[in-house]
Amino acid sequence: MGKIRCIGVLTSGGDAPGMNAAIRAVTRSGIVNGFKIKGIYRGYDGLINGDIAPFTTENVSNIIQRGGTILRTARCQAFTTPEGRGKAYETLQRENIDALVVIGGNGSLSGALELAEEYDFPCIGLPGTIDNDLYGTDSTIGYDTTLNTIKECVDKIRDTATSHERIFFVEVMGRDAGFLAQNSAIAAGAEAAIIPEDSTDSDQLIEFMQRGIRKSKKSCIVIVSESPKCGAMYYADRVKKEYPEYDVRVSILGHLQRGGSPSAHDRILASVTGVGAIQAIVQGQRNVMVGVRNNEVVYVPFIDAVSKKKPIDKNLIKVLNELSI
Amino acid sequence: MGKIRCIGVLTSGGDAPGMNAAIRAVTRSGIVNGFKIKGIYRGYDGLINGDIAPFTTENVSNIIQRGGTILRTARCQAFTTPEGRGKAYETLQRENIDALVVIGGNGSLSGALELAEEYDFPCIGLPGTIDNDLYGTDSTIGYDTTLNTIKECVDKIRDTATSHERIFFVEVMGRDAGFLAQNSAIAAGAEAAIIPEDSTDSDQLIEFMQRGIRKSKKSCIVIVSESPKCGAMYYADRVKKEYPEYDVRVSILGHLQRGGSPSAHDRILASVTGVGAIQAIVQGQRNVMVGVRNNEVVYVPFIDAVSKKKPIDKNLIKVLNELSI
Amino acid sequence: MGKIRCIGVLTSGGDAPGMNAAIRAVTRSGIVNGFKIKGIYRGYDGLINGDIAPFTTENVSNIIQRGGTILRTARCQAFTTPEGRGKAYETLQRENIDALVVIGGNGSLSGALELAEEYDFPCIGLPGTIDNDLYGTDSTIGYDTTLNTIKECVDKIRDTATSHERIFFVEVMGRDAGFLAQNSAIAAGAEAAIIPEDSTDSDQLIEFMQRGIRKSKKSCIVIVSESPKCGAMYYADRVKKEYPEYDVRVSILGHLQRGGSPSAHDRILASVTGVGAIQAIVQGQRNVMVGVRNNEVVYVPFIDAVSKKKPIDKNLIKVLNELSI
Amino acid sequence: MGKIRCIGVLTSGGDAPGMNAAIRAVTRSGIVNGFKIKGIYRGYDGLINGDIAPFTTENVSNIIQRGGTILRTARCQAFTTPEGRGKAYETLQRENIDALVVIGGNGSLSGALELAEEYDFPCIGLPGTIDNDLYGTDSTIGYDTTLNTIKECVDKIRDTATSHERIFFVEVMGRDAGFLAQNSAIAAGAEAAIIPEDSTDSDQLIEFMQRGIRKSKKSCIVIVSESPKCGAMYYADRVKKEYPEYDVRVSILGHLQRGGSPSAHDRILASVTGVGAIQAIVQGQRNVMVGVRNNEVVYVPFIDAVSKKKPIDKNLIKVLNELSI
Repeated sequence: MGKIRCIGVLTSGGDAPGMNAAIRAVTRSGIVNGFKIKGIYRGYDGLINGDIAPFTTENVSNIIQRGGTILRTARCQAFTTPEGRGKAYETLQRENIDALVVIGGNGSLSGALELAEEYDFPCIGLPGTIDNDLYGTDSTIGYDTTLNTIKECVDKIRDTATSHERIFFVEVMGRDAGFLAQNSAIAAGAEAAIIPEDSTDSDQLIEFMQRGIRKSKKSCIVIVSESPKCGAMYYADRVKKEYPEYDVRVSILGHLQRGGSPSAHDRILASVTGVGAIQAIVQGQRNVMVGVRNNEVVYVPFIDAVSKKKPIDKNLIKVLNELSI
Repeated sequence: MGKIRCIGVLTSGGDAPGMNAAIRAVTRSGIVNGFKIKGIYRGYDGLINGDIAPFTTENVSNIIQRGGTILRTARCQAFTTPEGRGKAYETLQRENIDALVVIGGNGSLSGALELAEEYDFPCIGLPGTIDNDLYGTDSTIGYDTTLNTIKECVDKIRDTATSHERIFFVEVMGRDAGFLAQNSAIAAGAEAAIIPEDSTDSDQLIEFMQRGIRKSKKSCIVIVSESPKCGAMYYADRVKKEYPEYDVRVSILGHLQRGGSPSAHDRILASVTGVGAIQAIVQGQRNVMVGVRNNEVVYVPFIDAVSKKKPIDKNLIKVLNELSI
Repeated sequence: MGKIRCIGVLTSGGDAPGMNAAIRAVTRSGIVNGFKIKGIYRGYDGLINGDIAPFTTENVSNIIQRGGTILRTARCQAFTTPEGRGKAYETLQRENIDALVVIGGNGSLSGALELAEEYDFPCIGLPGTIDNDLYGTDSTIGYDTTLNTIKECVDKIRDTATSHERIFFVEVMGRDAGFLAQNSAIAAGAEAAIIPEDSTDSDQLIEFMQRGIRKSKKSCIVIVSESPKCGAMYYADRVKKEYPEYDVRVSILGHLQRGGSPSAHDRILASVTGVGAIQAIVQGQRNVMVGVRNNEVVYVPFIDAVSKKKPIDKNLIKVLNELSI
Repeated sequence: MGKIRCIGVLTSGGDAPGMNAAIRAVTRSGIVNGFKIKGIYRGYDGLINGDIAPFTTENVSNIIQRGGTILRTARCQAFTTPEGRGKAYETLQRENIDALVVIGGNGSLSGALELAEEYDFPCIGLPGTIDNDLYGTDSTIGYDTTLNTIKECVDKIRDTATSHERIFFVEVMGRDAGFLAQNSAIAAGAEAAIIPEDSTDSDQLIEFMQRGIRKSKKSCIVIVSESPKCGAMYYADRVKKEYPEYDVRVSILGHLQRGGSPSAHDRILASVTGVGAIQAIVQGQRNVMVGVRNNEVVYVPFIDAVSKKKPIDKNLIKVLNELSI
């Protein structure tokens, strides 16, 4: 492997607030450290198709505060095949890109790992996902912003829930990980959270509702992780059947959870890990995800980041239970 | 009719941001002008059931910035019957309430009109609805806040729509009035609005989509007024069928549109009309809705406010069309 | 005067949120109506120096939500001289610009009027100023956003004022016009406003403070229009001298009042007046400011817009007084 | 020392967003765990004067989202004397309060330590300060919210700075600790931060300005920690003197930094540490501050929390330098 002169950067998978701050940090820190930077558009699709442009500090000027990703993003089916990754590698050679920084979630980093192993190509990952489900980093870029977006939405829903004395089931993102639901429930002062990691079934929920009613709470908000089978709608129907006298409503927050100007935390996390990615390349590291743990930059082997399970803190479940009385 | 000494105030129907500012204005201006004020809880339900408390300036302290309504609200079936209104009138007499200020939308003011006529009881209305569909006032309390809430949600959705190059159908409130959809589409820079007042059918929409595609816009947002039959889901399905190659998504904003701290405009409108309601009582007016037109307080007979149709400005449709190129 | 083929657009004076939405509207509506559009950078400076670029719909894509102005702005001394305007006119001829749309406040529109008269050149103005001090339009582009920004700041200051039981003097923009101070005081539930139009002197203020104290309000917020001599600091010192036992603080909001994503109202106003500016040109109008009155587009002769005084509604002073008890 | 039956809770010193969430958590978790809770008003003043009320779960209902503190707060001179603390202890005995939870910053916890030692009275601290300057916890309640408030203000100032091509010195809170300035500078994409911990003198600043100018940045924002001698005004004057051709402005953010609805992070931190305080009492701990380190609840002896210095991460200074090119 020769000397690294040019670094490509791409965003992949679901977009997350702070991805632009990460692109900015990789680009500027890369240039400061003597590298040429190329921006790859539309995730691995752009890598396969050669949708690439050189990046200067001006390309990333005035983007730290913007949601979305100026590089666009996509979920790329072709890259999951050896042929797709072969084409991607050809592009990298043709464009004289010597190392790749991938900003994305679990699937995106898994893709980078495969490319890295098949072609012995240096890849560095940044944890870019609102779901917070990457092992080895305290939080992921986008998670804090989305948590705040949900908090603000639920604050608004509580205004109307209280005014009408209704029960609301609010569905949030996080199909496989309950961080958003659990923590937004605490942050918004919700009465309960239903998360994939927990055994809460609807009987427990009914029991909870009964407790709540006995204590004569007039309104009630339950945060539910999205789920193909048992989302907010499922629980709302169950409760309506048991308590036909209640005014039960559903709110599915949907895609607005992905957008918005990133929070201070996510901008800082993106900046610190972006600079850390360039440092990793300078130090000759490869196939690691840059994370932050205990306020320090850490380098997590891809294989750990994507295959180890990051658990929900059980203490948070206790905290929610005690505070929702 | 004797001298008015005590005024009751209630909020009714769907809650709207700014209702608290209106309650505060009625209460404080009432007290300044020598009246006793009583707060009636849960709309006409509370009037029927006697759920009433005396209000001082402290009761309305530090509420101007809060969403929802501290008086709670409800849609009251009983009050649509003569028996219900009879009980309500008994309560008014028992509580020595001599005049009523009703903060609510079309249905709530219609109810006030019936009570007023049947029992010759002085009622004053404040236009409290996010839908902006009351004739005689430039805007209604809550409308501007909801418009801003939608704008912020669509700004966020655009971040992700642009990043993924998707088509979004965003459903907003306003089943019978397109003010929210039409104006939020202009404010958010959306590509189109589908409103109940307009003849846009899905063929026109398809044609629009084709235009848009020809001009190679990569992402597209259409705002749709909620509708039992042809909401956002209906149009999304239609487009998906015509253009299976597109990535089409739906977002239904739902109840969060009702909440949130009121905008400056709604707080001022609520304050001005609340003071205007007390002035109306002082002047001996009755059965009028207090509105603001051309920056001046106006008094609109109930019958006009609830039965005349407030039209969508056709110029706004032209503005949206020109700017969505 | 020949047929108008190319329209120049510039922003001038203090920046205001919504200027970008106005630039977008002028550009897109202009293109739809068959005109060529040129963007002039840095206000009249750019007109004098030829800092100009052709604008397409892409130039104004995704800017409706952004604060500031992509055209930059400046207060241009040279343009107040005949020589400066002469150079500006030469640039217009050299660039084949046949009409000019100026987005700005009083000074900027006065400049446009002089250019228009001296060279018989068609100019259209858009009311772009946070101060709301242009005659003939219900509000100006930027005013509603700034009002909301102040409201949010004062909501935050009230949190700490209440927690510490302090008296705050908050200084806001509007050296010559009290719209921002008067209306933000109502919107934020402040106890008083001190505005240039009103005769409030500090003795009245002291009297007010005494009233407030007698009624045992624990905290108090007074909004003060900025002023070289009697700003927030002046009043705070006066009160501290009279009431040394009070904890009096000053907050000068400063330049953050100019920034931020524009409100729905300002985006719509900018869109409607921007389209209206192109209509005016199509109709052969010149030397008018496009405004909105009573929800309708109006064309106000420059001379009226800049020289007539827009009064503060006296009713609003009464409203604030009644509600601050 | 007998069994603990009743716990008093107070907020002290400068108010911080999230204090209400902490009061709520202590109250509800306390009640769930069988304690009686008493709210003490106005910090140590209320303890000395007996300004105390019993608290139920209703007292803390619907406050998690509110800035400020419902218990009010004060900086209490009397409590720094043995006589003051003696009176406070008498109140505790008279009110049958067996343990105290103090929510506040360095000075407040120092006071609690003195009371605890002089009277062998169990005290638990929660880190409530926007300054983040308490040793032993990753962050303090209020810090994240204030960081986001500053970020939003600077985003707005950048709109106008860019539009006018100006240099801004923005002064933020943190007289003795640069966390707010350093991290808000990274988050807001500012060009530099001047913090008490760093040796940046104005000569370095001038040098930095020169670098920036050479690279032809048009606008520039420098964040400055407040300081009696060398605040934003001092640096602005220095730069104006060196570069009279520049348009240099100052913005002092002031007290609005303390207010606002707390961020998700601060609400969760307040909830977790509030529950942790009750656990500490259950476990028989005393004279510890409850913090969160590495996502785990930790108990830090008061003496460490208030006397050890929490350092600024040097890596963050490097990150800011690399990204401000």
